[in-house]
Amino acid sequence: MQRVYTFDDDSKPDKKILGGKGAALKIMTQLGLPIPPGFVISTNTCIDFLKNNSTYPEDLWDQAMDALKKVEKKLDKKFNDPENPLLLSIRSGAAISMPGMMDTVLNCGLNDVVVEGLIKKTKNAKFVKDAYRRLIQMFADVVCNLDIQEFNKILDELKQKNGLNSDNELTSEHLDELLEQYKSVFKKLFGSDFPQDPLTQLDMAIKAVFNSWNNDRAIAYRNFENIPHDIGTAVSVQAMVFGNFDDNSGTGVLFSRDPSSGKNHIFGEYLVNAQGEDVVAGIRTPQSIDELKNQWPELYKDLEKNVKILETHFKDMQDIEFTVQEGRLFLLQTRAGKRTGKAAAKIATDMVKEGLITKEEAILRITARDIEEAIFPHVLWKVFELQKYADIDDLDAEIEAGKSVNEIIFDASSKPANLVGKGLPAGPGAASGHVVFSSDLAERIVKGEAAPFEITEFDKKRGGIPRLILVKHETSPEDFHGMVASQGILTMTGGMTSHAALVGRQIGKRVIVGAGTSGLDLRGDVLRTKKGDLITEGDIITIEVIDDGFVYFDNLPIVTPDNLPEELEQILIWSDEIAQMKVRSNSDKEDDTLKAIMNKSTGTGLARTEHQFFDALDTMREMILAETEEDQRVALNKMEELQKEDFTKLFTVSDGRPVTIRLLDPPLHEFLPSELEIRQNIYDQVLDPEQTAENSRILRKVLYYQEANPMLGLRGVRLGLMIPRIIRIQSRAIIEAAIEVKAKGIDVKPEIMIPLISTDVEFQKAREIVDKAANDVFEKRGTKIDYQVGTMIEIPRAALTADQIAEGKMGADFFSFGTNDLTQMSLGFSRDDVGKFLPFYLDNNILPVDPFQSIDTVGVGKLMKMTVADGRASAKKSGKYLKVGLCGEQGGDPTSIDFCYQIGLDYVSCSPFRIPVARLSAAQATLKYGEVDSKYGKVWPTPKN
Amino acid sequence: MQRVYTFDDDSKPDKKILGGKGAALKIMTQLGLPIPPGFVISTNTCIDFLKNNSTYPEDLWDQAMDALKKVEKKLDKKFNDPENPLLLSIRSGAAISMPGMMDTVLNCGLNDVVVEGLIKKTKNAKFVKDAYRRLIQMFADVVCNLDIQEFNKILDELKQKNGLNSDNELTSEHLDELLEQYKSVFKKLFGSDFPQDPLTQLDMAIKAVFNSWNNDRAIAYRNFENIPHDIGTAVSVQAMVFGNFDDNSGTGVLFSRDPSSGKNHIFGEYLVNAQGEDVVAGIRTPQSIDELKNQWPELYKDLEKNVKILETHFKDMQDIEFTVQEGRLFLLQTRAGKRTGKAAAKIATDMVKEGLITKEEAILRITARDIEEAIFPHVLWKVFELQKYADIDDLDAEIEAGKSVNEIIFDASSKPANLVGKGLPAGPGAASGHVVFSSDLAERIVKGEAAPFEITEFDKKRGGIPRLILVKHETSPEDFHGMVASQGILTMTGGMTSHAALVGRQIGKRVIVGAGTSGLDLRGDVLRTKKGDLITEGDIITIEVIDDGFVYFDNLPIVTPDNLPEELEQILIWSDEIAQMKVRSNSDKEDDTLKAIMNKSTGTGLARTEHQFFDALDTMREMILAETEEDQRVALNKMEELQKEDFTKLFTVSDGRPVTIRLLDPPLHEFLPSELEIRQNIYDQVLDPEQTAENSRILRKVLYYQEANPMLGLRGVRLGLMIPRIIRIQSRAIIEAAIEVKAKGIDVKPEIMIPLISTDVEFQKAREIVDKAANDVFEKRGTKIDYQVGTMIEIPRAALTADQIAEGKMGADFFSFGTNDLTQMSLGFSRDDVGKFLPFYLDNNILPVDPFQSIDTVGVGKLMKMTVADGRASAKKSGKYLKVGLCGEQGGDPTSIDFCYQIGLDYVSCSPFRIPVARLSAAQATLKYGEVDSKYGKVWPTPKN
Repeated sequence: MQRVYTFDDDSKPDKKILGGKGAALKIMTQLGLPIPPGFVISTNTCIDFLKNNSTYPEDLWDQAMDALKKVEKKLDKKFNDPENPLLLSIRSGAAISMPGMMDTVLNCGLNDVVVEGLIKKTKNAKFVKDAYRRLIQMFADVVCNLDIQEFNKILDELKQKNGLNSDNELTSEHLDELLEQYKSVFKKLFGSDFPQDPLTQLDMAIKAVFNSWNNDRAIAYRNFENIPHDIGTAVSVQAMVFGNFDDNSGTGVLFSRDPSSGKNHIFGEYLVNAQGEDVVAGIRTPQSIDELKNQWPELYKDLEKNVKILETHFKDMQDIEFTVQEGRLFLLQTRAGKRTGKAAAKIATDMVKEGLITKEEAILRITARDIEEAIFPHVLWKVFELQKYADIDDLDAEIEAGKSVNEIIFDASSKPANLVGKGLPAGPGAASGHVVFSSDLAERIVKGEAAPFEITEFDKKRGGIPRLILVKHETSPEDFHGMVASQGILTMTGGMTSHAALVGRQIGKRVIVGAGTSGLDLRGDVLRTKKGDLITEGDIITIEVIDDGFVYFDNLPIVTPDNLPEELEQILIWSDEIAQMKVRSNSDKEDDTLKAIMNKSTGTGLARTEHQFFDALDTMREMILAETEEDQRVALNKMEELQKEDFTKLFTVSDGRPVTIRLLDPPLHEFLPSELEIRQNIYDQVLDPEQTAENSRILRKVLYYQEANPMLGLRGVRLGLMIPRIIRIQSRAIIEAAIEVKAKGIDVKPEIMIPLISTDVEFQKAREIVDKAANDVFEKRGTKIDYQVGTMIEIPRAALTADQIAEGKMGADFFSFGTNDLTQMSLGFSRDDVGKFLPFYLDNNILPVDPFQSIDTVGVGKLMKMTVADGRASAKKSGKYLKVGLCGEQGGDPTSIDFCYQIGLDYVSCSPFRIPVARLSAAQATLKYGEVDSKYGKVWPTPKN
Repeated sequence: MQRVYTFDDDSKPDKKILGGKGAALKIMTQLGLPIPPGFVISTNTCIDFLKNNSTYPEDLWDQAMDALKKVEKKLDKKFNDPENPLLLSIRSGAAISMPGMMDTVLNCGLNDVVVEGLIKKTKNAKFVKDAYRRLIQMFADVVCNLDIQEFNKILDELKQKNGLNSDNELTSEHLDELLEQYKSVFKKLFGSDFPQDPLTQLDMAIKAVFNSWNNDRAIAYRNFENIPHDIGTAVSVQAMVFGNFDDNSGTGVLFSRDPSSGKNHIFGEYLVNAQGEDVVAGIRTPQSIDELKNQWPELYKDLEKNVKILETHFKDMQDIEFTVQEGRLFLLQTRAGKRTGKAAAKIATDMVKEGLITKEEAILRITARDIEEAIFPHVLWKVFELQKYADIDDLDAEIEAGKSVNEIIFDASSKPANLVGKGLPAGPGAASGHVVFSSDLAERIVKGEAAPFEITEFDKKRGGIPRLILVKHETSPEDFHGMVASQGILTMTGGMTSHAALVGRQIGKRVIVGAGTSGLDLRGDVLRTKKGDLITEGDIITIEVIDDGFVYFDNLPIVTPDNLPEELEQILIWSDEIAQMKVRSNSDKEDDTLKAIMNKSTGTGLARTEHQFFDALDTMREMILAETEEDQRVALNKMEELQKEDFTKLFTVSDGRPVTIRLLDPPLHEFLPSELEIRQNIYDQVLDPEQTAENSRILRKVLYYQEANPMLGLRGVRLGLMIPRIIRIQSRAIIEAAIEVKAKGIDVKPEIMIPLISTDVEFQKAREIVDKAANDVFEKRGTKIDYQVGTMIEIPRAALTADQIAEGKMGADFFSFGTNDLTQMSLGFSRDDVGKFLPFYLDNNILPVDPFQSIDTVGVGKLMKMTVADGRASAKKSGKYLKVGLCGEQGGDPTSIDFCYQIGLDYVSCSPFRIPVARLSAAQATLKYGEVDSKYGKVWPTPKN
């Protein structure tokens, strides 16, 4: 079988066989671009090699030698020919990019004899000897796994002895001395001499690359990125070119369009007389690619032409590496370039205009991250650091030090930022600001009543009012004013539904919670980091909340986007044309609903009614503390009026869009003071007998309603069935409001949602109360409106008995997955407490993703599939179509939206600000899967609304 | 189609068609016994009648008239013949007994003319007129639904006017007056005269019986007992005989064997010159059936012969009603008789010896309740009240008053006991005792240090030490001594896992928890009942814990069984020969395990290790409060020694039986003081700076480990993975103990169980730690033993991904369903909090049974089925057989055991004292289903152990 492919043979450039890098080199060669010749050993060969106890398949070596001969012939150079030697690079390259994870050997082919010949030929002794030194060192490290510190020690001692500051001050004589010592330490550590036979070097280098597929960091990386372990790496063997040969040489990287703005012009950097690693090392400042135009105009023109060819071929913006040796241009690599969200949209829409790609392709080019970046403030990382995974040094050392790949990748990408902690990503975006530990102080600073630290340049740039990050163990309702005054909130404890997370997200702040698990330690007014930093009041930190919450003891630059860029708007308009799944919003109040509609929500998937009860806290307490049914009735009737007003506003602003209103869900004790609080009151008011009696009465109620596990307690429909008046007044308020709004000529589509159903009987009994209340209103008003009654599917048993709940005339009209609770109960994870172990679980790959962010498709997803299939089949028997949606927080998560489409949901519902992401994801899912097949009972088109 | 069957036609006595009563009458007739002739209208006819808008099917009436003619001919009497009139009873009778739920009409056929004729014939005017009066009253009530109080008022006024105390003082003249008034009020209320045509009476009575199938109480009863609504009732029309005709007449009930001891002799009561209702009313004291032998020796011999015939035919002890009219014996009904558990076993084993039934039939005759009754103390209800459902008056009125059928049935059965409250049945059995409200007082009373109330006869009978019932809002660890001192514990709040329930059950007390929901109200030292009783210290109450927890303000007699009667032992030995599913015990300590083995446990299904940690509370606190890893290590090493000792004892006493040891499960905060407690300490010790610092440190840990929903928090495998040393020391302790016990020549079978698994990765990581620890011990000791590693299936996601968890070499060796947690999470019910709504749910038929008592087969059961099927299939691929058991509390519940067998479990594990029940249930399941088919992957025989 064919195991070796030269860049210029006429086989297809198949990524699976040649790896990403090999395929790109082949394509570029086929396009006639200036590529140093070479060949690729297939990925299958790697697999065969590893399976066969690190032994080559029989047919490999001969094929490789044939290919080598072709390369030699092409260049008219020979491997191991001291007169005119060919030097080779040996690089890894899997089908899926695993940058920096596997091994590379450069300058292969040098030995004591070839070195002499090459010096003679190039008249550049220092360059040649340095290349040889690098080969020995790299070989010792990568191929022979020797202790690289021994080599570094020699180099350091030599430099010290001779008073040299940097490697490039080494003279030819220094290099002679170094080479002797290198060779001798190599022999000492390896047990035999550095191999002088170039073919032996090549053989060992190829094997080393193969074996590096299974080094610890590569395995960890694949686990982390969910890359299969059985696809293997290809090996590219390519003639070396040298950007550091002389001053007529150089090396650079470029993007075919501006990765920051997306504008259609070449963007990049280069260095004269330098190698790739010199650009990365940052010792010398690279020049802008624009200067190349002046320096080497012909070459630039050539480069420009080649870039155009590549972009036209790949139909995407390219990230290209090039080297110039002795005035001659070579391309070494091309791949799709990373870009900002704004640039991504600009490039995609431009390319549609240019006729390069279709609208559908444009939609698939944009990622959710692109939209998020365009919505939320974010840290402005340097453009070239967008290539997060490139050139990570010392990875092995860091893995040995117990770091996870995730941390290392981040560390590397964030250099030189000082990452000091991590936590749960509760409120997305990024913020820099002064640390404050007190909410009162935060408020006073912003009001100008306090100035405990100096106004810095940082503050001046931002208008003179200090930006603040509020740091607390955890927040409570008493911190509300401090949270409003701050840009970001950082807590030590608490999970994704802690007060800080919920409220912070609601008021649009950047929030990291539960950062204590990462070693941040708040004691009094000092925040200690694991590394030993002490952060005190006024110090500036940055919090960045993306997939994870990161805390930097640094003042990082933050970019705050304005509106959604128009190119992204364009992409979303195209998306809406394509998406078959609707996007609704989770919005409880008028203003949020309006925001959602401006983001093109098709309706409200979840309007919680809790806030109405919390707003009328006194009335609710009256209701709960009522000793007689009459008192309870009076209190609840007050509630009815308040709710009707609210619903009227919701229906009015929704203007004909469906509004799913969930009936009261939380347990009653949430409306009462805490035990601690009331005990304090008793203590404080002990001299007032009347108050004491009242306090005791309240304490009794508090104790009565206290629950060991409130998540699994007396709430939702359970509460509604035991106090049916709650369901009754809420239903009446909804129907009354709907009738009144309709009377004004505005269409209304109320959908009443019963929470926390676990059995069909619960649903039927609750539905009876709703229907009775509605009919009472209809009779009283002498008019009718349409409404639906459905339920959250948030308890595993409800999912398991979906057929019963959807059955018959009294069955549910719709289901809406409450994946927050469903995840809690299916996994047995309390969201409030998960901060103590979820970060550990994610870091140790026990769970691939946070199931509260992205649906656990294996476990929870299995239940959801069953629910849709069983529920729809059962409803069908009664001649009904069961509408199924999702209104958990995962409704705004792209992977979850993808899954929802696969199992046939009619809509997802998410926070108003996540709607753009959801619209994109919904369209992408349609493009990815086409029409969902009917095995889950999906009937297209979806019912109108 | 045939709708009417005479008792003596040659059709088969099919219960489904004739109802239970009709079929029995037919069988008795066919056996040649003295049965008043009659006929039965089929159950199908009832269904057709109800479907057809309460109209007879066309073919009914003619068939009924034919049958009536046959009856007339047989008796040589005629319906509506004043000279020699036939009178009829019209009774309901469904295929499944619904005693007292439907209507009955007696004395049908009397009118003004027939009455005169019958007086002439019988010369017994008082008897005939009273019969007529009863007919009119019964007809008004049952057939015409008139207000029966109007009739009672007339009777009362007449009695008052004439100074009569009871109905049977009414003279013939009184009856004439009464009849006039009855007829006039009937006309007033009904709008027309009492129907004089006997055929009209018959027609209306039959229709009334049919319609009574759908009266409220019958529907409620069927819902409650899960009887289908579409099976209808049959109607028996039978010639009347009168036990109250003269002094040569009488009526009685008997059991063919003693229902209390099971001894093989007739046991019963009779009354001369009386009707059935007179026996029930209890105005006259009935005579023992033995006296009948002297009074009417010939008749008694006849009766004895007939009883033998019936027992031989039905192969079971019979409960028989008979009537004697003018010296002639008639049998009116026979059915299997209720009996005590002890009697049930005695009768069954006797009948096997007598060759009447097989061993298998004997096993099926015994119920779990029979065994429970033979194990636990219980209230000694009067023998005839064993017929719990018979003769319930005023059922409609009580349903209207909002009572559930359950309550009514109980009220009726427990007369004259004063039922004042209900709660959750946390500790089975019954106890009577003085109420105490303080644990300290309870202890002092029992120690003789306090005597706050007088020693009563009640106490003297019981040895002079007062028996106590401890009544508290809820108990806490401080109540332990009081609980030990009391016979029973009654709490107002708390659920099935509250402190009172868990600890009370563990120390073998009768426990009712959460009784506050039934209206019991504890304020200070007074327990108020809903009815207004005030129960104070020293008052005697009785608590009875069977399917439900009942509280009586009465001193009811309690029987405390000794050992399991030998006949029950015999049944269980037979059961073990038949059962294909093993029974293990949930026993943590040596003594419990020994108890289980004496009850013939085949091994330990669940040995919790928590108690070891709680016993060493100080050490655990050291571990949790440890600031350094070294301190933690030292603390945990202490634990290791303690545990090894415990495991050594367990393995020794288990003597080769498998022992499943569950690794530590509870959250860490359970080992710390409560927040309230530590805050109190801070307050108390505020002047001691050192102690204050320490208290603050503890408070910080307490707050850190505090969880919103501990049930779903950091516990089980989560804790073990984050502090792997916990798994390590436990595993080492198990393996070390096993090796040492084996060295003594005792076989050991350790099964290590990982708790709270939700993903396969968790299991594999935990297993790695266990295997590593085991191998370390093997190396150190230079010897090996076999052990298994498996997991609880208690989180829905684990059930959903059973295939992954059982997969491959590192997959689980066994599963054990933790149905307590699995039920909590599948239904979203916290066991600790469920007391607030579960009673309401059960009373309102939202749930058919308490899912913590008996597996929710529809929801949780669906998950369990999937788990067994997926897990076994996956293990099979790796060539393994996956052993699956259950160790939740439902392991001792007969219905759950039945279900476990159906889905192919290898064993159930339950409390040591429930083992006899489980052994019986396991055998019954095998007899019921035979070998379970392989659709769930069951492979018989089960693996040995």
